[in-house]
Amino acid sequence: MSRPDPAELYELTEDGQVPSPTHPTHAQSKYPDGSSIDWLQEEAAEREHTNLLRAQHGVRGLLLPWLDACRMWLVVILTGLGVGLTGGWLDVLVKWLGDLREGRCIYGFFYNQVACCSDVKPGEVCDAWLTWGEYLNVQMMFSQSLLHSFVYVSLAVAYAGSAAVLVKTYAPYAFHTGIPEIKAILGGYVLTAFLSPWTLLIKGLGLALSVASGLSLGKEGPLVHVSCCFAYLISRLFEQFRNSEAQQRKLLAAAGAAGVSVAFGSPLGGVLFGLEELDTFSSNETEVMWRGFVASAVAAMALSWVNPFGTSKLVLFQVTSLSDTWRAFELIPWLTLGVIGGILGSLLIKLNVEIALYRRNSSLNDWPILEVVAVSAITAAVSYLVVFSRVQASELVANLFQECDPTKIDYHGLCNPTAMWENVFLLLLAAALKFMLTAWTFGMMIPAGIFLPTIAIGACIGRAVGILTQGLQRAYPTAWIFLSCPPDPTVPCVSPGFYSVIGASAMLGGVTRMTISLVVILFELTGALSHVLPIMVSVMAAKWVADAFGKDGGIYAVWIAMRGYPWLPPVDFHDKGETGAHLMRPVLRLVVIEDGQRTTAELDALLNQHDFHGYPVTREQEFLGFATRDKLQLVIAPLLAEDVDSGRARRCRFSKGSSFDSETDVDLSGLLEAAVLQLRPEVPKELVVSMFQKLNLRQIIFTTKGKLTGMVTKADVVGLLTCNFPHTASLAAGRRPG
Amino acid sequence: MSRPDPAELYELTEDGQVPSPTHPTHAQSKYPDGSSIDWLQEEAAEREHTNLLRAQHGVRGLLLPWLDACRMWLVVILTGLGVGLTGGWLDVLVKWLGDLREGRCIYGFFYNQVACCSDVKPGEVCDAWLTWGEYLNVQMMFSQSLLHSFVYVSLAVAYAGSAAVLVKTYAPYAFHTGIPEIKAILGGYVLTAFLSPWTLLIKGLGLALSVASGLSLGKEGPLVHVSCCFAYLISRLFEQFRNSEAQQRKLLAAAGAAGVSVAFGSPLGGVLFGLEELDTFSSNETEVMWRGFVASAVAAMALSWVNPFGTSKLVLFQVTSLSDTWRAFELIPWLTLGVIGGILGSLLIKLNVEIALYRRNSSLNDWPILEVVAVSAITAAVSYLVVFSRVQASELVANLFQECDPTKIDYHGLCNPTAMWENVFLLLLAAALKFMLTAWTFGMMIPAGIFLPTIAIGACIGRAVGILTQGLQRAYPTAWIFLSCPPDPTVPCVSPGFYSVIGASAMLGGVTRMTISLVVILFELTGALSHVLPIMVSVMAAKWVADAFGKDGGIYAVWIAMRGYPWLPPVDFHDKGETGAHLMRPVLRLVVIEDGQRTTAELDALLNQHDFHGYPVTREQEFLGFATRDKLQLVIAPLLAEDVDSGRARRCRFSKGSSFDSETDVDLSGLLEAAVLQLRPEVPKELVVSMFQKLNLRQIIFTTKGKLTGMVTKADVVGLLTCNFPHTASLAAGRRPG
Repeated sequence: MSRPDPAELYELTEDGQVPSPTHPTHAQSKYPDGSSIDWLQEEAAEREHTNLLRAQHGVRGLLLPWLDACRMWLVVILTGLGVGLTGGWLDVLVKWLGDLREGRCIYGFFYNQVACCSDVKPGEVCDAWLTWGEYLNVQMMFSQSLLHSFVYVSLAVAYAGSAAVLVKTYAPYAFHTGIPEIKAILGGYVLTAFLSPWTLLIKGLGLALSVASGLSLGKEGPLVHVSCCFAYLISRLFEQFRNSEAQQRKLLAAAGAAGVSVAFGSPLGGVLFGLEELDTFSSNETEVMWRGFVASAVAAMALSWVNPFGTSKLVLFQVTSLSDTWRAFELIPWLTLGVIGGILGSLLIKLNVEIALYRRNSSLNDWPILEVVAVSAITAAVSYLVVFSRVQASELVANLFQECDPTKIDYHGLCNPTAMWENVFLLLLAAALKFMLTAWTFGMMIPAGIFLPTIAIGACIGRAVGILTQGLQRAYPTAWIFLSCPPDPTVPCVSPGFYSVIGASAMLGGVTRMTISLVVILFELTGALSHVLPIMVSVMAAKWVADAFGKDGGIYAVWIAMRGYPWLPPVDFHDKGETGAHLMRPVLRLVVIEDGQRTTAELDALLNQHDFHGYPVTREQEFLGFATRDKLQLVIAPLLAEDVDSGRARRCRFSKGSSFDSETDVDLSGLLEAAVLQLRPEVPKELVVSMFQKLNLRQIIFTTKGKLTGMVTKADVVGLLTCNFPHTASLAAGRRPG
Repeated sequence: MSRPDPAELYELTEDGQVPSPTHPTHAQSKYPDGSSIDWLQEEAAEREHTNLLRAQHGVRGLLLPWLDACRMWLVVILTGLGVGLTGGWLDVLVKWLGDLREGRCIYGFFYNQVACCSDVKPGEVCDAWLTWGEYLNVQMMFSQSLLHSFVYVSLAVAYAGSAAVLVKTYAPYAFHTGIPEIKAILGGYVLTAFLSPWTLLIKGLGLALSVASGLSLGKEGPLVHVSCCFAYLISRLFEQFRNSEAQQRKLLAAAGAAGVSVAFGSPLGGVLFGLEELDTFSSNETEVMWRGFVASAVAAMALSWVNPFGTSKLVLFQVTSLSDTWRAFELIPWLTLGVIGGILGSLLIKLNVEIALYRRNSSLNDWPILEVVAVSAITAAVSYLVVFSRVQASELVANLFQECDPTKIDYHGLCNPTAMWENVFLLLLAAALKFMLTAWTFGMMIPAGIFLPTIAIGACIGRAVGILTQGLQRAYPTAWIFLSCPPDPTVPCVSPGFYSVIGASAMLGGVTRMTISLVVILFELTGALSHVLPIMVSVMAAKWVADAFGKDGGIYAVWIAMRGYPWLPPVDFHDKGETGAHLMRPVLRLVVIEDGQRTTAELDALLNQHDFHGYPVTREQEFLGFATRDKLQLVIAPLLAEDVDSGRARRCRFSKGSSFDSETDVDLSGLLEAAVLQLRPEVPKELVVSMFQKLNLRQIIFTTKGKLTGMVTKADVVGLLTCNFPHTASLAAGRRPG
C-alpha cells in the first residue's frame, strides 16, 4: 500500500494514541490524556446507567432519571451564566487595561474612561479623565508625545509579555485560540489538562492582557475555550459527568455555543457556530442544538445584564443609516471583494502555516516569551505609523462600518472626497500590515483569536473598494452602469461602510470556510438585516475561490492537522474503487488473543507488551469478539494473583464451549464488547470512512465468513483523510525541532 | 415479542414497501412508487459512475467529473431562480385575486389595486380603483353592503371550490402542505407522482386560489413543495439525475431551502429550515447546507427582483419604532406566552389529528369538495363577524406587529386605551376562531400551509397579553414591579406590538417544535434583531411545555406517522437493555436463498412468490451475501430462457467453490451486494436504531460466527419508533374508512 503509515505520520501508537506528555496512571481515568474515547463503549455505559436508575423501585425509578436530566440542564444554564458574566467582566477589564495605556482617572486608579466620565453629559468635556501627560503635569508638547508613545508601547509590551509568561509558566494549553483542540475533544480526543480550572484562569487573564496589548488578535476563539473550561469545571461537581466522557462532550458542545454567543453578542450565531464548526460528533443533533440554544441565550442574557459597553445593546458594530436598497451594478465590486477575500484568506492560512513551521523548527522555538515581546513592540510601533491601525481593532472595525453622515464625526477624514486616493492607500497599507502581523501573531505563546483581525483586514479592503466605487460613480455619474443611481448628486448612491461589512464577510469566509454561521454572526454584529443577500453572495464567492486554492477546510482544520489530533474532518471522501481490504491492517499485523491458548500470566505479559486500546479475540481464526485492555487488566490482575498463589496456570477462555473446565480454564467471555462493528473486506472504502465519520467509531473489524481478516482504527482513517496535507502533525506534541 | 408488527401497522409489504396506488411496471423505474431507496446501493452506483468518468483518457477524465458538478450547481441555481420568480408571480396573482373580491380597476380587469393606483401620490385618493358597488353604480348604502358581502363570500367559495376541484381531479398529491411527504422523500421514500410537473402546476394554481379565498391557511409549506417539483422537473433534463435517486434527493434538500426562502423572504431561515426540519439524511452535511445556501440566496435575489410588494424589501412584517431596551418584568408575560404557545400548539396538533381521523372515517371522506366549499363559506362569513379576521391573515399579522404610533393610522383602535377590554376580547375571539378553522382547514383537499395561520393565532394572543400588560402598567405605574419604566407616563414602557411577535414565535414553536430556524425566520420576518433574546426565551418555553404534553415531534412528524410513510424520526431512542436480537426478524421467518439448492426455475418462482426488495443468501446457514430482487430478475430471466430451451435445470450458485461445474451450475456470485452491514445479535438495540438513522440503511443482517441469524429492515425500525403514536398509518393510502 502506498498510503503513509498513520502511526508514523502522527507519532501515535499503533491504535491511535498520541503519547501523552504527562503520562498519568491508568488509575486516574479510564482514558489517559492523548487517547480517543470509544463512543460505542461510552454509550453502552450510559445506557447501563440509565437502565439502572429506571430499575429502581417506585418513585425513585421515575425521579432519578429526571434528576439526571435536571443536572444536565443545570450545568448548561450555569455555564451560560458563568460565561456571560465572565465575558462581560473581561470586556470591562480589557477596557480598563486599554485605557490605562492612554491615561488615568482622578477618582481612582481602577476606573476606566467610561466609568470615570459617566457623570459627564454628552457634549461636555470629561475633566476627570487625564492623559498621562496631564496627570504627570508634563507641559511641553514634545515631551508629552514622547511620554504618551513611551507609555503606549511599553504597556503593550508589558501586557503581552506578562500574558506570555503566564501561559508559558502555568498553563501551556492556554495558548492560541483553542478551537482546534475543542473540535478534537468533541470528536472524542481526551485532553483533560486543556480544560483544567488552571487553564481557565490563565486563559481568561492572559486573554485580557493580550487583547489590551493591542496585538493583532481577537478574543472570540479563546472565549470558546474559556466557556468549555467553565462547563468542565461545573460538570465536575456531579458524579454523572465525572464518569461519562460522552456526557461531558455533550456539555462542551453547548458551552462552545455560549462562548461564541458572548464573544460576538450573537446568540444565534453561537448556536450555528456550534453546529457548523464544532459539532460534528453529535449522537442526536436536535438535542445538542437545543442545549446550545439554551446555553447561548442564557449567556447573552447574562452579558446584557453586565452591560459592559454601557449601551444595553448586544450589537457590537451597529451599521447605521443604511439605505434599504442596493443597485445591481454593486454586485460587481461585491463579487470582486468575495474573490479577494477567498484569495487572501487562503494566503493567510498558508502564510500562517509557514510561520508556525519556521517558529517550531528555528531557534525561535526556545524563546517564545521574547518572540511575544518583540512582536508586541513591533505591533505597537507600527500602530503609530499608520493611522488606521492606531486604535483597537474593534474600534477600527466599528468606524469602518459607519456610513458617512454629515451630522456625525468623520472618522479620520474617511468621508472626505478630496482625500480619496490617500484614504485608499492608507486602508490598503493598514490591511497589508495587519495581514502580516496576524499571520505571525496567531500561534504565538499567548491566547489569540483570529476572527477580529480577519474582520479588520477585510473591513479595510472593503472600505477601500467602497471608496473607489463611490469615487468612480461620482466621477462618471452619467455612465450607463450608474444610471440606477439617483440623479441628485447630493443623495449618496454607494455606501462604502457597507462595503466594509462585505469585505469582512468575504475575508472571514476565506479564512474559516464557514458559511451560514458566518452570515448570521455578521448580521447579528451589524444589524444589517436588509443586506443579508449581498453578504451571502460575497461569502459564497469567497468560499468557492478559497476552496479552489486548496481544500484545506479552513484555518482550524489546518491547525488540527498540524497538531496531529485524531480528528475526522467532515469531508466527503471518495474512493477510486478501493475496498475496506485496502484500508485495513491485515490480521497478520494485528495483536490477536487466541481463545484458550494463553495462560493468565501469558495474557498479562501480552497486555504489558502491547499498549493497545483493545484486542480482537479469535478461535481458530474465527472472530469471537473484541476485548479492551483496561477491562482485561482489571480482571486478569486478581486471577493472575490467584494462579501465582495456587501454582496453577489456567488458560483464558472467551467462549464457553463443551470443553470448558473450571479447573484449568478461566471464563473471560463476559469481557467481550457487545457493540462491535463487523464488516466484510469487500465493503467500499468510502462506506468505511463514512461509518467512522457518522458513528464516531474507534475501530471496525473485518471478517470473511466469520473469520477475522483485519481491522481499521480511527487513526488509519484520520491518516487517510489528511494525507494530502503536507505538514500533518508537524507541530504535534513531543516532536522535536530538527 | 410485544411490539406490534410493523407490516400490520403500516400496510407495508414485509420489507417496507407501501403498496403503490398506481402500480407502475418495474421497467419504468428501479424503484416503484411507495418503496424506499437503498442508500448504500445508490451510493455504490454513484461511486461507480464517478470512477467511470475519471477513468476516461486525457482531458475527458478531468472534464467529465467537473461537468457533473457543474450540472448539479446549474440545477440548484435554476431551481432557485425558478422558485423565486414563481413565488413572486404567485404573490402578484394572489393579490389580484384577493383584490377582486373587493372591486376592480377601471384601466382593466387584470390590474390589482397596487398596480392600478401606482400613479397616485401618497395622501391622494385613488380614483382608478372602484369597489363593486361603485363600479356597478349601486347607490343605496344597504344594497352596496349586501353586494359587497355577497361578492366577498361567493368569490371565496368559488376560489376554494375550484382549487379543490383542480386538486381532486388532476393532482391528488397537491393537497395539504407537502412537507411531510418531502421529509419522507428526503429520507428515501419514493413517490414520483408527488413531484410531477402536473402536481407543480396544480399546486401553484391551487395555492393562489386557496390563499386568495381567505381560508385559514398559508402558502409556506406548499411553496416548499412547489420548489421541490421545480428541482425535480429541471433535474429530469440531465441523465445524471434521472438515474440517481440519491443525487435527486440532494437537489431536493437544496430546493426545500429555496422554497422557505421565498415563502418568508428569509434566505437564512430557509437554509436553517432545510437543516433542522428537512435534512435528516445528508450523507455530507456541509455540502448539503452549502447547496441550500446557494439555492436560498438565488431564490431570494429572484424574488426581490420581481418585487411583488413594490417595497423592494424582503422583510414582510417589518416591526417599527421598537425601543432597543426591554425590562426584566416583561419576562413574566413573555414566559407566560411561551407556556400558552406550548399548550395551544400541542392542542392544535391533537385537534387537527382528531379532525383528520373523523374526516377519514365519516361520510365526509366521500365529499371532499363539498367540505372545502362549506368551510370556505363559513370562514368567509365568520370573517365578517369579527373585525380582526376580516382582512387577510398576512395583513392582520403585519398590523398586529406594528407598535402604536400617533403619527400613523391606528389599526382598528388597537391603540385606544379606553377600549382595552373590548380589544382583548376581540383578539382572543379572533384567535379562538382561527384556532378552530385552522385545525379543520389543514388537511382538506386543497394546498394549505400551517405557518401563517399559526403566526396569526399567536399574534392575536400575544397582542392581547401585551395590551393587558400595558394596561396594568398604566393603571399602577408606581408599583415596584414597574419601577424600571420611565417615570414620564407619555413615554411608552410596554410595546404590545412586540408581544405579538413573541406570541407568534411561541405558537409556532408549539406547533412545529422547531427552534433555531424558527427564531431566524421570525427575526428575518420582523427585523427585530435587538429582541432576539426574548424570542429565543419564548420559543424555549413553548418547546419545553409542548414536549411535556407529548413527544410527538411537531405537526409534520404526526402527519408523517398518520400517512404511514417509512420515515425515521430523528429522536433519541433508548432501549431498556434489549439487543438487536429482540428487534430482528429471525432467520426462520426470512425468505432465504440457499446457495446451490435452487434451479433457475425455482429461483424465478421464489422471486415471483415473495415480492421483497432482496434476499439473504446462505450456504449451510453461513451468510454469503445479500442479493436484490431487481438484479436477480434481470439475470435470471435470460438464464431461465436458456435452460428452458436446452431442457437443463442448472443450479444457482453464489459462491465459486471447488465443486462448481459450469455445466450444471450458474454463477451468480457477482450479484451479491458489496455494501452489506453485518452485526452480531448481541449489539444493543439502541445502536441498531442509531445506525439506521445515521447511515440511512435499508436493512442490517445479523450473524453469529458467520451464520445468518436474522435481519432488521427500515420498516421494523420505523415501527419501533412510532409505536407510541396511536394513529399510526390511520391515513395511509389504500386504507379504507371503517
